[in-house]
Amino acid sequence: MPGQTETTPASAQASIDALNTTEVILHRVCKAGEVTGSVTGRHFLHAGPPIDPADIPGPMRGAIIGGLLLEREAASVAEAEAIIDRGEVGISPCHDAGAVGAMAGIITPSTPVVVAAAGDTRTFSPLNEGIEGAVRYGSYDDATLARLRWLGDVLAPALDEAVQNSDPLDLLHLVAEGLRRGDDCHNRLVATSAALLVTLTPGLLRGSSDREGLARITAVMARNGHFALPFAISAAKAVTLAAAGFDGSPVVTAMAGNGREFGIRVSGLGDRWFTVPSPIGNPVLLDGAALDDVTPTMGDSMIAETAGFGAFAMTAAPAIMSFVGGDMELAQGITRRMREICAGTSTRFLIPGEDFRGTPLGIDVHRVRATGIEPVINNGLAHRDPGRGRVGAGITPIPVEPFAEASRALEEAGRR
Amino acid sequence: MPGQTETTPASAQASIDALNTTEVILHRVCKAGEVTGSVTGRHFLHAGPPIDPADIPGPMRGAIIGGLLLEREAASVAEAEAIIDRGEVGISPCHDAGAVGAMAGIITPSTPVVVAAAGDTRTFSPLNEGIEGAVRYGSYDDATLARLRWLGDVLAPALDEAVQNSDPLDLLHLVAEGLRRGDDCHNRLVATSAALLVTLTPGLLRGSSDREGLARITAVMARNGHFALPFAISAAKAVTLAAAGFDGSPVVTAMAGNGREFGIRVSGLGDRWFTVPSPIGNPVLLDGAALDDVTPTMGDSMIAETAGFGAFAMTAAPAIMSFVGGDMELAQGITRRMREICAGTSTRFLIPGEDFRGTPLGIDVHRVRATGIEPVINNGLAHRDPGRGRVGAGITPIPVEPFAEASRALEEAGRR
Repeated sequence: MPGQTETTPASAQASIDALNTTEVILHRVCKAGEVTGSVTGRHFLHAGPPIDPADIPGPMRGAIIGGLLLEREAASVAEAEAIIDRGEVGISPCHDAGAVGAMAGIITPSTPVVVAAAGDTRTFSPLNEGIEGAVRYGSYDDATLARLRWLGDVLAPALDEAVQNSDPLDLLHLVAEGLRRGDDCHNRLVATSAALLVTLTPGLLRGSSDREGLARITAVMARNGHFALPFAISAAKAVTLAAAGFDGSPVVTAMAGNGREFGIRVSGLGDRWFTVPSPIGNPVLLDGAALDDVTPTMGDSMIAETAGFGAFAMTAAPAIMSFVGGDMELAQGITRRMREICAGTSTRFLIPGEDFRGTPLGIDVHRVRATGIEPVINNGLAHRDPGRGRVGAGITPIPVEPFAEASRALEEAGRR
Repeated sequence: MPGQTETTPASAQASIDALNTTEVILHRVCKAGEVTGSVTGRHFLHAGPPIDPADIPGPMRGAIIGGLLLEREAASVAEAEAIIDRGEVGISPCHDAGAVGAMAGIITPSTPVVVAAAGDTRTFSPLNEGIEGAVRYGSYDDATLARLRWLGDVLAPALDEAVQNSDPLDLLHLVAEGLRRGDDCHNRLVATSAALLVTLTPGLLRGSSDREGLARITAVMARNGHFALPFAISAAKAVTLAAAGFDGSPVVTAMAGNGREFGIRVSGLGDRWFTVPSPIGNPVLLDGAALDDVTPTMGDSMIAETAGFGAFAMTAAPAIMSFVGGDMELAQGITRRMREICAGTSTRFLIPGEDFRGTPLGIDVHRVRATGIEPVINNGLAHRDPGRGRVGAGITPIPVEPFAEASRALEEAGRR
């Protein structure tokens, strides 16, 4: 089997075992300030590796404006911009707080988040706002903020109550079943989102929301095919955290973009980021859009690929191929190449169309360096200007450089 | 393309066009007596081609006992058996009343059914009772009858209200989306059932059921992965009716078993049944069961294959293969052979894993006769004794004989 002919070092196997066995359940749905002390009215989390606040891309700046308005730290857009320009908003990576944020990934105390639990570990990710106008794309108009406040003040508490009223929901089972239903659980989650709503509906009915409230809550969830995304990626964050910290392990435990740089973390190399200018790939663009209009890869949602699904389960989700550009033959070729650069195989994410073979699991930086094969992610791309939404989607190869650099660093560390 | 090299006669094309373009929507969920005059307290519908009441298999007899108790025509099992043995219950095929019934397919006035509409045509199929104990397998114990009464008195009216409160639900779109989510919509319907519940939940919330009632209704629907089956097969019945009646058309418009005989109907040959002893196939049996324990193919649900899904979409549903015995290579081979014996290709049922190629559509009796290729269905098999439930499932080839006979009959009719 490609990629499996070399002995997998014990440290890599420890990471693979953690990825395959750590159980993650749905813990809460609530405002971020209830689960972390890392955010305040003047300190937010952001997607990707560390970035200079003066260098943030358009959508991220828009999302910070939205955050300041949401927190009522600013009463107007002009006031918010002034606060930002005076350097009075601190920012730090979601990843350092146990979080993952899609697109701009700005998390503030009032941001409604999904919270996952693996033992004592808590991870979180913002509720998906839908596509009408979203802070994650840098929108900050009144309708967007009203939607976000409703999510935090009405939908999140109702779901939180439902979670407490229900049997524990195993989030990695939810993802695994999604892969059996034609989702990749990164860019296509329609079946996973339907399954999630079906699972939570009895708990919602037993809760305190009135009929009209329930009708609105379920309708909002039902029409958002990406509703399950934060449930999937908060679980992916938890399971990759469990795979981290094994001395000498070459397994990648984080991949993330901030729209300027793309970074990876590796199990045996602590919290160190290895970065490269953020790639754009070869996206399928919406009518009228040009490559110039695109923000380079921004977001933490490729924690999905890091955990063995998303593009690493591409052959489970043929319906994604027309969206990101490609066909089954392309998908099969990509999956074969990913197997060559991974340390193991998933025992939980099985691809029905491959007779239930497990997905490639645990990118191994030594194998990437040795083969020159670029790991791929499927991702959405934001317009460069804030509030313009998604402008394209594609299969994005990640340059080999950060993986090779990490591989050399591991060898260095091994020699000391 | 195999099966497409010969000219498709205009009559066959008319059937294919009807299969591809007829729209079918969800009309009602109610008791059968409200939609048909074909059933009374002493006349029931049954699955499959016509059968002598003295010859019915065990599960069908059990289902008739259940029907008499449900209708309160009998106050005890002994009384019900006496009524049957005195020949005081008339039976006729579901197919003759615009219905399709899974397994024994016994429909009585109080049987809760899904009603589909295509123009003025109404078709119907019993709500799926789940697997705990079901009249369709011949159970007639108190718990089974209580469950069936609750479905008819509580769940059906709530769904009926939801249907009236909602936008029209296109049932063939529901099936097509199910195929995109790894269902075959005959034996695997978990994603389709979840999508159905998500779609109907807002209407349920706007209706008159109280909270506790809604909680029970949604829970029953949520845990029954086959809940969507009657929605799928009542739609298949409507679309195959639309394909019937084209002079000279060799396209099969019905396939059904009564546990003794298996019959087909053909578009250009009116209501005539062409039959063969009901096949057993090579099923995967539950632990402890033997081939002797099996009722030969019984049920109308292979109207799914007749309409171009079920086993004819096998490659869309890899998760079904372990259930019916097989792998993707087997599924691909079967699909190739079905293309050879079909008159056309579906434009609505697309197989994601085949780059969205349409399913083989419209079994052509001339092609079956010429090639000797047996059409296949995926079906569940009942224990020979009433009330023992499902004993196995498999890929069941249908013998060529009735198709060849129909082909010769069409030629005869063409010569006159």
